[in-house]
Amino acid sequence: MENSQVVLRARPKGMVDDSVTELVSSSRPLCGVDEALIRVGILSIDPTIRTWMDDAPGYLPPIEVGGVIRSSGAGVVVESRSERYKVGDIVVGLTGWQEWCIASRSNVFSVLPSGMGLDLPTVMNVLGSTGLTAYFGLLEVGSFSAGDVVVVSGAAGATGSIVGQIAKARGAKRVVGIAGGPEKCREVVEEYGFDECLDYREPKLSRRLRAACPDGVDLYFDNVGGEILDDVLLSLAMNGRVVLCGAISQYNSQEIVGLKNTFMLIMRRGRMQGFIIFDFAARFAEAQIALAQLVLSGEVVHHEHLVKGLAAAPSALNLLFTGGNHGKTLVVVDDTVVLQ
Amino acid sequence: MENSQVVLRARPKGMVDDSVTELVSSSRPLCGVDEALIRVGILSIDPTIRTWMDDAPGYLPPIEVGGVIRSSGAGVVVESRSERYKVGDIVVGLTGWQEWCIASRSNVFSVLPSGMGLDLPTVMNVLGSTGLTAYFGLLEVGSFSAGDVVVVSGAAGATGSIVGQIAKARGAKRVVGIAGGPEKCREVVEEYGFDECLDYREPKLSRRLRAACPDGVDLYFDNVGGEILDDVLLSLAMNGRVVLCGAISQYNSQEIVGLKNTFMLIMRRGRMQGFIIFDFAARFAEAQIALAQLVLSGEVVHHEHLVKGLAAAPSALNLLFTGGNHGKTLVVVDDTVVLQ
Repeated sequence: MENSQVVLRARPKGMVDDSVTELVSSSRPLCGVDEALIRVGILSIDPTIRTWMDDAPGYLPPIEVGGVIRSSGAGVVVESRSERYKVGDIVVGLTGWQEWCIASRSNVFSVLPSGMGLDLPTVMNVLGSTGLTAYFGLLEVGSFSAGDVVVVSGAAGATGSIVGQIAKARGAKRVVGIAGGPEKCREVVEEYGFDECLDYREPKLSRRLRAACPDGVDLYFDNVGGEILDDVLLSLAMNGRVVLCGAISQYNSQEIVGLKNTFMLIMRRGRMQGFIIFDFAARFAEAQIALAQLVLSGEVVHHEHLVKGLAAAPSALNLLFTGGNHGKTLVVVDDTVVLQ
Repeated sequence: MENSQVVLRARPKGMVDDSVTELVSSSRPLCGVDEALIRVGILSIDPTIRTWMDDAPGYLPPIEVGGVIRSSGAGVVVESRSERYKVGDIVVGLTGWQEWCIASRSNVFSVLPSGMGLDLPTVMNVLGSTGLTAYFGLLEVGSFSAGDVVVVSGAAGATGSIVGQIAKARGAKRVVGIAGGPEKCREVVEEYGFDECLDYREPKLSRRLRAACPDGVDLYFDNVGGEILDDVLLSLAMNGRVVLCGAISQYNSQEIVGLKNTFMLIMRRGRMQGFIIFDFAARFAEAQIALAQLVLSGEVVHHEHLVKGLAAAPSALNLLFTGGNHGKTLVVVDDTVVLQ
């Protein structure tokens, strides 16, 4: 009984290539007492996976060399020796990049309620870490309030597109996106309903931001870090808030871009704050109900970019950094699970 | 009737030299309706004055070329046509670097209560912007609570030394200073009662900080910015707070040091926040009572570095950046006022 797995062969320098990961065949894990055996159906491809590959301080320990790549995912319970799971349940948790995994006391998987009216890719996107990150980052960490001028980078991305739409739905005065290239910028405005979207590949971003937000930026949701973050700091409004969600521009780079404009936090009495979605775990259910309502009402439009087959997971991760994806990137490991 | 003034002749590049300021003689201002004429006694020499000399975005407009250098100070009311002031009152406000000034409706000066038992230099230090900055920065912006591990840069300086002493008085678990040179470090520990003080001129500050705060830094009060701030970020504890008070290491430099470690704000769910003391103006009286009690009880030890004569104000400002001062730098314009 085989279990295909993608393991970390060497720590990456820059993008993930063939020297970094390897597809190996292991034996299917055995289901112990208080455990369940999960057939993995789908993987959530998140930028944070790239940070786990580095031997650097993080909110979770680095993936060990030789170990399975850590990842969120969903699957179906095939065998259960736990009261928590029954055969046929769809569960979500840290599956890793593999075909089979074990749900145990130490890596609690949550069981999806049935009859939500949302398919599994939508759940993995809007109700998964992507949507939850957007929800708590904007509303809690960013202390969003109606009337705010909101700027979102990575605006065409899975998280960014949801952030902007929640802000619009909750009464933002103005939502401005930042994305790469005219096509993505058009999508951000036409599809996700942002008021404007600036192309960071064009010159003079900081000047264009000033024109787009003449009264300053009340809340900046930062998905990218680096020079774009530095540019937005220059437009911070009084008591402006910068939500540090990720720094995707920096994850593959060997030379970190230093922030030069943090003095604006003094000038504008601003706040820059990081967060990790796990900190809000106790409130996930509340957020998922709100997010499901936003999807069902049509206020949050979403896209999933489905990549077929476990073997394609490393290249799917790279799509996040090249911008080659359209919406939330998910790897379908077993489509019979996804179609259940 | 003359009025000696120090005016801005040209915007500085780096330290203030003879080409930047000029001592000129003007005529003494006339006291209009609702105004008072003030004989300036003492000037508060603050790092922020250097930022006002630049043509850069700030929390107040830049000092105009040709204008009197903006500065806090204290003086005595010599003539009054306002109900707010009576002749003989000692008042504090934005006097500017000059011998005489006008208190009006637009630049309200506050009258010092008499009988406080504190001399004017002490008032200008601990009850002035220095002590207020330490008080609100630590307790409000930094959300200090008893049991915190606190790190303070510029620890031998006027603000830093008060921050550490308030933290000790309010029950910090540990207070670690950062200062320049062995003599200042010794002073921070022996005189101001910090638990330890690290010399930033010695190598490997980030490693020494980790050793000094093995459980991480709950609250960092940053007076200096630049590389020291970047080093402390690496030691941030979970939910750590960075209070941006000033960036004295950067004010004279043409090339800003970029912060590379702000990713730690994500990893540690940290917060970095700037402030300007004027934001707390409505609560100054409350803080001044608390600060006066800390001085009278001996819990806050303080030093004033008195420089004689208005003409010495520019070189007194430079002392803040060379570290040539000892405690709060004040310029005595007229010592008959100070001795009143």
